[in-house]
Amino acid sequence: MRILGIDPGSQVTGYGLIEGTARGPLALHFGTLRPPRGDDLPDRLLFLFRALRALVAEYEPDLVAVETAFHHKHARSTLVLGQVRGVLVLGAREAGTPVQEISPREVKMGVTGHGGASKEQVQFMIKSLLHLSEAPPADASDALAIAVCAFQRRNVHARG
Amino acid sequence: MRILGIDPGSQVTGYGLIEGTARGPLALHFGTLRPPRGDDLPDRLLFLFRALRALVAEYEPDLVAVETAFHHKHARSTLVLGQVRGVLVLGAREAGTPVQEISPREVKMGVTGHGGASKEQVQFMIKSLLHLSEAPPADASDALAIAVCAFQRRNVHARG
Repeated sequence: MRILGIDPGSQVTGYGLIEGTARGPLALHFGTLRPPRGDDLPDRLLFLFRALRALVAEYEPDLVAVETAFHHKHARSTLVLGQVRGVLVLGAREAGTPVQEISPREVKMGVTGHGGASKEQVQFMIKSLLHLSEAPPADASDALAIAVCAFQRRNVHARG
Repeated sequence: MRILGIDPGSQVTGYGLIEGTARGPLALHFGTLRPPRGDDLPDRLLFLFRALRALVAEYEPDLVAVETAFHHKHARSTLVLGQVRGVLVLGAREAGTPVQEISPREVKMGVTGHGGASKEQVQFMIKSLLHLSEAPPADASDALAIAVCAFQRRNVHARG
C-alpha cells in the first residue's frame, strides 16, 4: 500500500511518500511545500490545499497520514498551524482518500523506540529504515516517519 | 455591496449575509452550519468547506468577512478551531471571493461602541441596526455583526 505522510507547519510543510511492501517500507518521494512568503493567510491556505491535491492526484496514495500537530506556546501560532493543518486534511479527504491522524509521540516511538526522540534521531532512523544514501531534510524526514509509522500500525493490525 | 460574515466555531459556525446600501446595511439571510455530530474531524472539515462553498455560490457575496477567532484556554480546542477556520477561509478564497479578517474586539467596538461588549449586547444591537423583529441566535448575530463591521470599515475608507 502507498502512504503519504504529512507534517504540517505554518512556514514549511513536509511530505513523504512510501510504498509498504512485504519486506518493509520503501521511500518513493519526499519534499516540502512552501507557500510564497508575501502571500496573505487565505492565499497561503489556497496554495497548500492545491499542492496537497496535486500530490494526491499524481501519486494516488491509499492513505494520507497527518501528524496531530504540536501546539505552540503562543495561541496565535497554534491557530495558524491549525488552519494549515485543516486545509491539508481537507485536501486529502476531498479527494476521497482515507486520513489517519498520528500523534508526534507515536511517530517518534514508532521509528526510534523512544517517544521523546530528537529530530536528529528521527532523521537518522529514517535514513536507516528506508535505506537512503543520506538523511532527508528534517521536515521531509518527519513526514516520512509519519508514513512509516502509519504503515507499521496497519501491519500490526493486519497480523493481529 | 453584499457581505457574508462568518463566525467560525468548533461545534457551530454562524453566518450572516447583508446588503450594504446607501441607507445602511440590510440583513438578507443568516443561520448556522453544524457538521453531523458523529463525523470525524476530516469529514466535519469537508462538510463545512462544502457548506461555505454552497453559500458563496448561491449568494455571490462581494466580500467574505471572517473573525480572526478567539483562542481557547486549551491548545487542543484552539487547534480544532484553527482547522475549522482554515477550511472556511479556503472555501471563500477558492471561489475567488476576497476575504477580510476582523478581530472580535473590532467587531464588538463596531456594533456596540465597546470592545468588551457581551454576546447579548451584540445581539441587541444587531436586531436594532438591521431592523429585525427579533434578535437572531447568538452565532448568527455574531456573524451578522462581523459583516456589518466589514461594511462600516469599507464605508469609512470610501469616505476617507
